Amino acid sequence: MQTEFELSTQGPGLYEFTSDVRDWLKPIARDGLLTLFVRHTSCSLLVQENADPDVQTDMRAFFERLVPPSNHPSMAYLRHTYEGPDDMPAHIKAALLPVSLAIPVTSGRPVLGTWQGIYLFEHRSAPHNRSVAAHFA
Amino acid sequence: MQTEFELSTQGPGLYEFTSDVRDWLKPIARDGLLTLFVRHTSCSLLVQENADPDVQTDMRAFFERLVPPSNHPSMAYLRHTYEGPDDMPAHIKAALLPVSLAIPVTSGRPVLGTWQGIYLFEHRSAPHNRSVAAHFA
Amino acid sequence: MQTEFELSTQGPGLYEFTSDVRDWLKPIARDGLLTLFVRHTSCSLLVQENADPDVQTDMRAFFERLVPPSNHPSMAYLRHTYEGPDDMPAHIKAALLPVSLAIPVTSGRPVLGTWQGIYLFEHRSAPHNRSVAAHFA
Repeated sequence: MQTEFELSTQGPGLYEFTSDVRDWLKPIARDGLLTLFVRHTSCSLLVQENADPDVQTDMRAFFERLVPPSNHPSMAYLRHTYEGPDDMPAHIKAALLPVSLAIPVTSGRPVLGTWQGIYLFEHRSAPHNRSVAAHFA
Repeated sequence: MQTEFELSTQGPGLYEFTSDVRDWLKPIARDGLLTLFVRHTSCSLLVQENADPDVQTDMRAFFERLVPPSNHPSMAYLRHTYEGPDDMPAHIKAALLPVSLAIPVTSGRPVLGTWQGIYLFEHRSAPHNRSVAAHFA
Repeated sequence: MQTEFELSTQGPGLYEFTSDVRDWLKPIARDGLLTLFVRHTSCSLLVQENADPDVQTDMRAFFERLVPPSNHPSMAYLRHTYEGPDDMPAHIKAALLPVSLAIPVTSGRPVLGTWQGIYLFEHRSAPHNRSVAAHFA
C-alpha cells in the first residue's frame, strides 16, 4: 500500500506529521513495515522528541551552526550558491539527516517510543511544498 | 515476524548486539529484509567496524567533540538543558546517526560485510534500558 | 528479489549508480520497496542532487572539513590510524551518512524526486571495489 504526504513549509525548522501517518495506518490494523522517503534533496525526515518544543529550536540552531549559510566566511569554499546562501547548506543538511525512515508497525500502530514524533526537517528559507512517499507492507 | 531487543547501557559508547540479531534470524533460514528501529531519541543504531576496538573509542571521541555537553561555552545557545548537560547533545547525536537500519537477509543471514557489526550507540551518561524493535519479512 | 551492485571507486567522492538500480527494477514493473545496503564501513550511500556537479564537489569538501585526515592537528586524539590518515575519518563519515536506503517503488520505478540520484560516497583515498546489496519486495 502506498501514499504520499504533502506538507507545506514556511522556512527552516521541524514540521510534525506523526498524526497523518497514524491516521493512514490505523484502518490497516495489522503488522507490517512502514517506510517513508522524502522526494527532495534540501529537506529531511527526522524522528525526534515531541515533548519539549525547545528540542526543536535547539536542533535547528545546532544545524545552522554546523552548516552555516554559504555567505558565512567559513563557507567561502562552496561553489553551488546561485540559488542563495541557504542552497548548498540545505543539500549538506539533507545528507547529514535521514532521507528515508523504516518503522515497524504492530496492529496498525507504528512502534514509536513514548516521546518519538515523525518530522519533516525543512532546510530552505523560502516556503516549499514537500512530498513524502509512504509504503506499507 | 517481529521482536524487540532489550539492551542495558552504562554510559556513552557502542554496544554490539550483532549476535542477538543473527540468533533471531537463523531459524528463519530464508531470504527477506531485516529492519531495526530504536524507540528512543537519545541513542542511535550504527553499523560499524567490529575488528579494532579503537574504532569505537575514536567514534565516541569524535561525536563528543562535534556535539559537546551543553555546559561547554560553545553550546551556550542550547535551551533544553534541564535533564543535564548530556541531554540535548544526546538528541542532536540521535539526529545525526541512524534511528532505523534496513539490512537484506539471505538464507537467514544478514548480508553484513566481513567487518560490519550492529551497535546501539548510547549518548546518555546515566545507565539506560534501551529497546530496539525488529521486523523481518 | 535480491542482487548486488559492484562499484569501483578511484578516491573520495560521489559515484552515481541510479541507472543500475532503475535497470534492475524495470522488468519487475510492480509496486514494492527497494532497500540498498552498503557492505562496508568506510563508504556510504547517499541520495543527492544529480543536476549541478558542483553539489558533489561541495559535498565532498564539506565532509573533508568536518572530518579532517587523522594527521591534521585537530584530529590528534584519534587512535585507529595504522591504515593511513584517511582510515578513521572514513569510518566516521560512514557513521554520519547512510549505510542503508529504503525507497518505495511504483510500477517498477523508484519514487525518486526529479533531481534525486543514488550515489555511493567513497571516503577512502585508494581505489576500492564496493558492494551494495539490494532487496526488492
